[in-house]
Amino acid sequence: EKIKSRKPRWSIRASEMSKKTFNPIRAIVDTMKATPNPNKPMIALSIGDPTIFGNLPTDNEVTRAMKEAIDSQKYNGYAPSIGQSQHKDIILTSGCSQAIELALAVLANPGQNILVPRPGFSLYKTLALSLGVEVKLYNLIPEKSWEIDLKHMESLVDDKTACIIVNNPSNPCGSVFSKKHLQKIIAVASRQCVPILADEIYGDMVFEYGAFKALAPLSTNVPILSCGGLAKRWLVPGWRMGWILIHDRKDIFGKEIREGLVRLSQRILGPCTIVQGALDHIINRTPQHFYDNTINFIKSNADLCYNTLSTVPGLCPVRPAGAMYLMVGIDMEHFPEFESDVDFTERMISEQSVFCLPATCFEYPNYFRIVLTVPDELMVEACRRIREFCLEHYQGGEAVQDLECDK
Amino acid sequence: EKIKSRKPRWSIRASEMSKKTFNPIRAIVDTMKATPNPNKPMIALSIGDPTIFGNLPTDNEVTRAMKEAIDSQKYNGYAPSIGQSQHKDIILTSGCSQAIELALAVLANPGQNILVPRPGFSLYKTLALSLGVEVKLYNLIPEKSWEIDLKHMESLVDDKTACIIVNNPSNPCGSVFSKKHLQKIIAVASRQCVPILADEIYGDMVFEYGAFKALAPLSTNVPILSCGGLAKRWLVPGWRMGWILIHDRKDIFGKEIREGLVRLSQRILGPCTIVQGALDHIINRTPQHFYDNTINFIKSNADLCYNTLSTVPGLCPVRPAGAMYLMVGIDMEHFPEFESDVDFTERMISEQSVFCLPATCFEYPNYFRIVLTVPDELMVEACRRIREFCLEHYQGGEAVQDLECDK
Ligand SMILES: Cc1ncc(COP(=O)(O)O)c(C=O)c1O
Ligand SMILES: Cc1ncc(COP(=O)(O)O)c(C=O)c1O
Repeated sequence: EKIKSRKPRWSIRASEMSKKTFNPIRAIVDTMKATPNPNKPMIALSIGDPTIFGNLPTDNEVTRAMKEAIDSQKYNGYAPSIGQSQHKDIILTSGCSQAIELALAVLANPGQNILVPRPGFSLYKTLALSLGVEVKLYNLIPEKSWEIDLKHMESLVDDKTACIIVNNPSNPCGSVFSKKHLQKIIAVASRQCVPILADEIYGDMVFEYGAFKALAPLSTNVPILSCGGLAKRWLVPGWRMGWILIHDRKDIFGKEIREGLVRLSQRILGPCTIVQGALDHIINRTPQHFYDNTINFIKSNADLCYNTLSTVPGLCPVRPAGAMYLMVGIDMEHFPEFESDVDFTERMISEQSVFCLPATCFEYPNYFRIVLTVPDELMVEACRRIREFCLEHYQGGEAVQDLECDK
Repeated sequence: EKIKSRKPRWSIRASEMSKKTFNPIRAIVDTMKATPNPNKPMIALSIGDPTIFGNLPTDNEVTRAMKEAIDSQKYNGYAPSIGQSQHKDIILTSGCSQAIELALAVLANPGQNILVPRPGFSLYKTLALSLGVEVKLYNLIPEKSWEIDLKHMESLVDDKTACIIVNNPSNPCGSVFSKKHLQKIIAVASRQCVPILADEIYGDMVFEYGAFKALAPLSTNVPILSCGGLAKRWLVPGWRMGWILIHDRKDIFGKEIREGLVRLSQRILGPCTIVQGALDHIINRTPQHFYDNTINFIKSNADLCYNTLSTVPGLCPVRPAGAMYLMVGIDMEHFPEFESDVDFTERMISEQSVFCLPATCFEYPNYFRIVLTVPDELMVEACRRIREFCLEHYQGGEAVQDLECDK
């Protein structure tokens, strides 16, 4: 037996992968060291969680479905790792986050790249980098209600592009793409032979009835993995129920992608079986008025917020059409005190106790994002304080921002 | 604008990672093409899910805790990604599987190796290979109630060893390590300066009161990630609630490992918040008699099964001391008809409609594993059929296996 040259000593380092796993929101927010103004109660418009204020409970049918699933004692055991769905093209996941993780993990190899919207949800980048996959950002155009700059998007595609992520309705923009625009997106993907990962977690959360079109039914050839979940529309983000729907009319994914997803799902198995057991009931028996109430509430806050901030000098809100967010441009020239949107929002906390996420979190400086699910009286108060803040810091003459924003 | 040389065409392949993610149990079981004997109803002793026969429901306190969490409407929102535990050293995960996944992902880089028991739970290898981490198998010794061959284990450690996985109580062995043995394991890890991943999902599921010792309290210096969950002891594997407890008395992990785990947890966020909300109640208010009943039931099946199979020619059952499994050696010399344990168990399906997992699934040929959570009358019937099967195929004189098995 050969003698080992190794001299053991302790030196445990966290893995490279854990170091590459990086949440930009955390990184930015954790460095924002503002303490709220002690004279004003804090209003957080920062977190994409519709449940935190307690004003938007889920529906009784939803909780009933859960309790029935528990009482049945039928959903305590392991489900298949892809979930107990009736349909072979549905993979149930632990939240839409895991849906996106699995979709990326099956489509992309280290060294490849994916196309991601800017501004866009930060998880795409977090997951891609942790997989060693490069991110290329394609532009959304605020003046066109955040439609994709399709030329720019197409110019980014190369041999190593594994997929295009399309997020509709959008976080952080609150935008909703028209059918026509979606068709053009598909045309790009088709020309370039690149599959699409459609993040439709805000599907159907739109202010105009019927304005949401799912991407997949519009595609005749481009294979699409659409990711969704219960989190937003059913107001239960903590329950971690998501899904991937595999759309592949022309059999371009073939069985390889489906098998890959099945294999990857075996690493941690699917979502909580109680929620799985309740899922059919939740999706099919939640009454329409529940969805309508949520949407009407968000829309009313959106109108209120948009209308107020439109008249604030130096701000350029972009009217949303769905989801639960509103993006506000900051005319930084008129706020010379502040270096950046991070600076701006930080000071809004310390002076007005209003917390909005700087859009640098979404790779989009000089904007901030407002979450629209807060109780309406807080929405009013928050907008009042944002106005006060801007009036105090605005420099450069009268409030002419209506022109500047080219509305 | 330069013209692209790229000629787009569709060629979508599943990623390397998805191909490396490989469940050996599925691979083996899916090739077992036996159809059960139509004259005998199937008895599956193959799946480590105590709920499938319906004879082991979870406790009323457990379901009550869940329903209270639902009714409170307090657990619909996002929890912190590591879960809403009071303690900074507890990370809640989506099942013990994700606990193991995160622990491996934070400790090991591609190209490193981990030490894994043989026979052992197949997920370790699945996860390691999907991360590009090599697996080295250390031997368990059936004659010593499946204690670790410590010399062998230590001989496998090298510069690239990221951690040692210790599974106690064991799947598939049903073995339970003594305090003394655990101390010796820790001594090896300490000498070699290698951290331990303790998989204690069957913690406290032991036949002799107090026989289970958690590994971490016995360590003065070796840093340990212990992984556990609700799956087995509370009989709710589908609920996907697991955890990592970080033990690091000498601050050898430092903050790096903790931070790495936090970062990795942000990829898909934690387990279902309803189960999180019920967790305290579940752990602290489930009555002792519930645990006792489960254990007594499993123990009684274990005795029954062990006693019966001990008298069957050609079989060498190893008496378990906990968990919910029993391993049975096959004296292959006396079954010349069969090439392997896979062959043997396959024929047991087609002739007797009894399905046991061949231990090749656990990298341990010539054994099969029996799951002990089936209703007792089925246990009796299954043992009867296994006996019949062996009597039919045993070759080589009288039943002298008592001697052969060195009991
Ligand atoms: C665009 C987008 N996609 C995915 C998610 C993740 O959803 P889940 O909570 O179901 O993981 C979010 C959550 O905020 C989101 O905004
Ligand atoms: C030894 C061992 N560890 C971990 C697990 C996974 O547990 P969970 O269902 O909580 O992911 C199992 C499941 O059978 C197991 O046997």
